Amino acid sequence: MKSFKELQVFIEQQIQEESRRIKTFSPANLYEPIGYTLDMGGKRLRPVLALLAYNMFRDNLEQVIPAALAIEIFHNFTLLHDDIMDKADVRRNQPTVHKKYSENVAILSGDAMSILAYQYLLKSPSGNLRQMGELFSKTAIEICEGQQYDMDFETRDNVSIDEYLNMIRLKTAVLLACSLKIGALAAEAPTQTADQLYDFGINLGLAFQLQDDWLDVFADQKKFGKRIGGDIVSNKKTFLLLKALELSKGTTNQSLQEWIKKENFDPEEKIAAITAIYQQLDISEITLQTIETYYQSALKIWKELDLHISQKSELLILAKRVIERDR
Amino acid sequence: MKSFKELQVFIEQQIQEESRRIKTFSPANLYEPIGYTLDMGGKRLRPVLALLAYNMFRDNLEQVIPAALAIEIFHNFTLLHDDIMDKADVRRNQPTVHKKYSENVAILSGDAMSILAYQYLLKSPSGNLRQMGELFSKTAIEICEGQQYDMDFETRDNVSIDEYLNMIRLKTAVLLACSLKIGALAAEAPTQTADQLYDFGINLGLAFQLQDDWLDVFADQKKFGKRIGGDIVSNKKTFLLLKALELSKGTTNQSLQEWIKKENFDPEEKIAAITAIYQQLDISEITLQTIETYYQSALKIWKELDLHISQKSELLILAKRVIERDR
Repeated sequence: MKSFKELQVFIEQQIQEESRRIKTFSPANLYEPIGYTLDMGGKRLRPVLALLAYNMFRDNLEQVIPAALAIEIFHNFTLLHDDIMDKADVRRNQPTVHKKYSENVAILSGDAMSILAYQYLLKSPSGNLRQMGELFSKTAIEICEGQQYDMDFETRDNVSIDEYLNMIRLKTAVLLACSLKIGALAAEAPTQTADQLYDFGINLGLAFQLQDDWLDVFADQKKFGKRIGGDIVSNKKTFLLLKALELSKGTTNQSLQEWIKKENFDPEEKIAAITAIYQQLDISEITLQTIETYYQSALKIWKELDLHISQKSELLILAKRVIERDR
Repeated sequence: MKSFKELQVFIEQQIQEESRRIKTFSPANLYEPIGYTLDMGGKRLRPVLALLAYNMFRDNLEQVIPAALAIEIFHNFTLLHDDIMDKADVRRNQPTVHKKYSENVAILSGDAMSILAYQYLLKSPSGNLRQMGELFSKTAIEICEGQQYDMDFETRDNVSIDEYLNMIRLKTAVLLACSLKIGALAAEAPTQTADQLYDFGINLGLAFQLQDDWLDVFADQKKFGKRIGGDIVSNKKTFLLLKALELSKGTTNQSLQEWIKKENFDPEEKIAAITAIYQQLDISEITLQTIETYYQSALKIWKELDLHISQKSELLILAKRVIERDR
């Protein structure tokens, strides 16, 4: 079995090769932005999970490349369209597609990416093609549902923690789970193991997104790529904010509500004030405990996987790395 | 075999049933606009072609419903996103999705529709699922290419007739061709016949779109749903305009160019002036002849189809109806 780092290098090469190829297609205004999007990089976590799951059962990795590329292209498509909807100007320190090209180009090249994803998936030589297609489609629709809930939450002031957890399950966790399961399906692994990998991925994905929420406030700025407190400034309804709204009473709750409503403020002052409220309410510790709970659920499933330790150890190494990033 | 009108009634019921079901899903802001789009109606030409092609070989129509729905949903998705890109406020006398809801809702519910289309397609019980998926994806990507060429043409003043024909092949004809071929594939028809039906569909589709261009100028206003001259007012580079630009000389060409450049004008005056130029250059007759050429090509393929006349007669009746609409 290859290490996840080897898999990362391997799939990065494949993605770059496909990007180069795609950028030669006509019309350029459709395909160039797709290459640009794929070149933006990232950790390629999802295709690595697909490769890793496949590699637990089989060595001929070239057979899972189409499915892994499908997942990475689909993921990048969702980022591209989300950036239009969120009016985000920058991603990974580069202008977003709708800023660099135009909104129409961003809509249409995104549409083409989602179809390209299916085109790659359909190249999978696996005997489980139908199940892979069904899982991929179910996941893709759920991601749209998650994005819609996320947008709906922006204008609602009574979002519960359960609703939030369901939203991040749809928007983030199902694709990690799908990546693992699709790798297992591509390898024609036992159904039960494929399902366990899916559940492992859901728990890992929830932990991953909660970690993202936590990092926005409590990360070490030096290690963390993004600016600290972005979610606080934009009143993003994260686990931290929703928990603070739930737990705060009296003047603390009043102060929190005031900061949320304020339209003119010094960002640094707002970040400091809300972080202080979070500290008062022990939000950091509560969030880390919730992350730990999901991580332990994943670990429990991992232990139950009916596989030799040599087959499954790399998955645990990757999971630990995902959760412990930059903490 | 059922008549195309019976197939139209049959698939309309299926679409309405699916629309009702989809509108019950959550989140409502994602699914309600999908139902709204599907309810807008239309002739359902594409799914009827899929059913008709299937029905040439098999009677158990329920087996081709998933593929037929996939095609209609995908077609409606392209209209939805095209309307955002074209900033169109009205479709079939109703507000477009981005006007009725919001642009973000239109982007995301469109994305979900394109995935739903695949989800339906993957329910096809046919043994040819892989080929159907590959054909569908190739077609879907080509439609994106066609839309991009169409947008590219808006800002170019040297579009050739060949480029235009290629654009409408991609934007319109390939989906009619795909509809027929996917029906044949679903029925596990002989490969050669499936390919002939595809080529028939390409010729029919080209004739169909050129007819659409012609109707914009020369239709009988009473029978034609849309306002006459819309393409002329917006300087849309149709076959008629490109042909007129190609054939006109001297003062006629000068007058045409002036009307195209004019920013302030009386629409009725512009329509009258350009229609007069078209008449002077015999554009109506040239366009009708070109339509006839594609129709004859389709007819030639139809004659070569290795099927009993009782199997293939309905296809010709439908094709004639498509070309002769409102002339």
